[in-house]
Amino acid sequence: MFNNIKIYTTNCGLKYKNRDDLLVIHFPKGANVAGVFTKSSMPASPIKWCKKIIEKHHAKALIVNSGNANAFTGKIGDEAVIKTVNEVAKEFGCHQDEVYVSSTGVIGETLKVDLICQAIKPMIESQINHQENQEELWDKAAQAIMTTDTTKKIVRRSCQIGHKTVHLVGFAKGSGMISPDMATMLSYIFTDAKISGNTLQKILEDAVEKSFNSITVDSDQSTNDTVLLFCANAIGDHEICDSNSEEIKHFISTLNELCLELAKKIVIDGEGAKKIIEISVEQASTKIQAKQVAMAIANSPLVKTAIAGCDPNWGRIVMAVGKSCEEADPESLLIKIGDHPLTSKGAKHPNYDEKIVHEYLKNSEVKISVNLAIGSKSATVWTCDLNEEYIKINKDYRT
Amino acid sequence: MFNNIKIYTTNCGLKYKNRDDLLVIHFPKGANVAGVFTKSSMPASPIKWCKKIIEKHHAKALIVNSGNANAFTGKIGDEAVIKTVNEVAKEFGCHQDEVYVSSTGVIGETLKVDLICQAIKPMIESQINHQENQEELWDKAAQAIMTTDTTKKIVRRSCQIGHKTVHLVGFAKGSGMISPDMATMLSYIFTDAKISGNTLQKILEDAVEKSFNSITVDSDQSTNDTVLLFCANAIGDHEICDSNSEEIKHFISTLNELCLELAKKIVIDGEGAKKIIEISVEQASTKIQAKQVAMAIANSPLVKTAIAGCDPNWGRIVMAVGKSCEEADPESLLIKIGDHPLTSKGAKHPNYDEKIVHEYLKNSEVKISVNLAIGSKSATVWTCDLNEEYIKINKDYRT
Repeated sequence: MFNNIKIYTTNCGLKYKNRDDLLVIHFPKGANVAGVFTKSSMPASPIKWCKKIIEKHHAKALIVNSGNANAFTGKIGDEAVIKTVNEVAKEFGCHQDEVYVSSTGVIGETLKVDLICQAIKPMIESQINHQENQEELWDKAAQAIMTTDTTKKIVRRSCQIGHKTVHLVGFAKGSGMISPDMATMLSYIFTDAKISGNTLQKILEDAVEKSFNSITVDSDQSTNDTVLLFCANAIGDHEICDSNSEEIKHFISTLNELCLELAKKIVIDGEGAKKIIEISVEQASTKIQAKQVAMAIANSPLVKTAIAGCDPNWGRIVMAVGKSCEEADPESLLIKIGDHPLTSKGAKHPNYDEKIVHEYLKNSEVKISVNLAIGSKSATVWTCDLNEEYIKINKDYRT
Repeated sequence: MFNNIKIYTTNCGLKYKNRDDLLVIHFPKGANVAGVFTKSSMPASPIKWCKKIIEKHHAKALIVNSGNANAFTGKIGDEAVIKTVNEVAKEFGCHQDEVYVSSTGVIGETLKVDLICQAIKPMIESQINHQENQEELWDKAAQAIMTTDTTKKIVRRSCQIGHKTVHLVGFAKGSGMISPDMATMLSYIFTDAKISGNTLQKILEDAVEKSFNSITVDSDQSTNDTVLLFCANAIGDHEICDSNSEEIKHFISTLNELCLELAKKIVIDGEGAKKIIEISVEQASTKIQAKQVAMAIANSPLVKTAIAGCDPNWGRIVMAVGKSCEEADPESLLIKIGDHPLTSKGAKHPNYDEKIVHEYLKNSEVKISVNLAIGSKSATVWTCDLNEEYIKINKDYRT
């Protein structure tokens, strides 16, 4: 499957004890790569680096550390990235511009880059001959990039391109500072299909919009968010260069599924979360409006705490629609929790039964749907409930 | 002082036991009135009513109930408002259009309007001859409109118009669903000055922008928000009709102070809050940008939980600036907590001492200032820290 990909992990001592905090992935034969990054105006040093090199869509290696975000660390931060890519490039005999870098952890602390650089060579030398059990290695990779995550997040898929079966594996980290447009969320996806860099970029952006950019844990957006899709070009008769071609359709739908599943894993592992909430907004004027209303509901602390308490306090959903959508009309607004209609003609639905909805809200998956009845566009987003544990985790994150 | 104003409160049995939940204020000689209301597209029935009658800027009475918001209650809700104003108008021998109405409490539950209507006559009859102790009556008024508030919020001021001393008293309720542009926040301000309705409206809107619209507890905006300023026209040789006139300047600054103090009382009583946080953004390109950045910080659950835990995790402030302001430049960004500079040249300030900032954060008032160094505009907003109690309160609000 992924014979063209070598996976290395170790503990380099940045922050965590008794677990790996450094991941290096090597593509001996190179990989096409596509990337989507945070839109923050305070991007971390690794983001600035990756944005610079992504235009070539070519990679030989990826290095990720957890425990320190190398964000808002000024020139020292930028220099740390250069030191890191130099070390990796030297090790693999490749060019600096072929080395992708990510960091995740606390913002504003100087990265102890020497710990990373010193760890690279011994890690590779000791593990280069132990690449057989790829299942286990991917799992280790997914674990090495975790911060406050409570579980590793990894998804495997395969699909057909022509008569050939190609494979995808993706893993991600993130559970706080999660909001649309990339929050502290790192996600790496690998495939052995043969697809050109530009085509990869196009299909990745589409997939991210409907998955990672449609989730929110706490409305906060990070300085380090990254999704990278690497294509190790092993399987296939030719490189696919057209994102509209028939032969890539199954791959695109599989990639979309994989991204959405990873994104949902992040929401489910939202800090303190006990439930995943799917919010669909239908019949909006525009896609943007649909997403705006869905996100207003998803980011409302009052909606999220009510669901945490299994309280069918649906007035809070009305409130969130009211604050986010000028065009909305109470008379035509239809809100459902699960299959239970809550509203009718600007008031409570005559068949609404609070006890039944209370019971429904005890499920670990909750669906809210809102029909604005003013247009034809829709959007779906995912979030989690808001519990005391979120506060506890974030009060003493660093202690 | 306020001989032209009569204050009545009672328990009409809507929700609360052992406390007043109904307030009626009567202006026997009439009052000029200005109002600012929620921008929600799902306004409660009382909001629709008040928006309709505010154009005349004339009032004879105000009626407020707590325990039920009469929001998203359809035609029945609108009819309940009509019933209420009819009852009040009949009692005081005035026109329907002179009666202002507010409701606060749960959304989407039918208001038991008969309980309100039945209570009005006996309340007035029993209290009309007990209007001497106005101090106490204003306090009772402030208490009657409370919901999850833990304390009454009332501010008294006086100022000079010409050689005459005029008085202002304002009270407010609100502690959750609080965000800019009016959240479940009700505030009523009364003065014995003589000021025209149009002038009142202008100066109230200005005052609200810098006070009630510059606070946030949880980023949620309510369906019922209302600020009303009543002017009982007792003191003064003539009615002031020009908001730019010299003679009204002291009144305006006093009104601004009063509104800000009431707004801060709401923030201090934010659900579960233990601290008030003042966030100033300076040297922005535009006032809108300044407020947007300030609100992004104020609404960040991660910033608010860090401050709850006295954790100087200032990277989260950088994150909030980054997500809210495309123009911001890390190199020139200056962030301070209290008097302590945190940043310099896109990285941690060389003199930053985490222990000192940790100690500072133990104060009950915390100041954050952000200098974007890209323009000349500024804005200040206020919020509170985010604690486990917020979740507890909102999980079982209705049980």
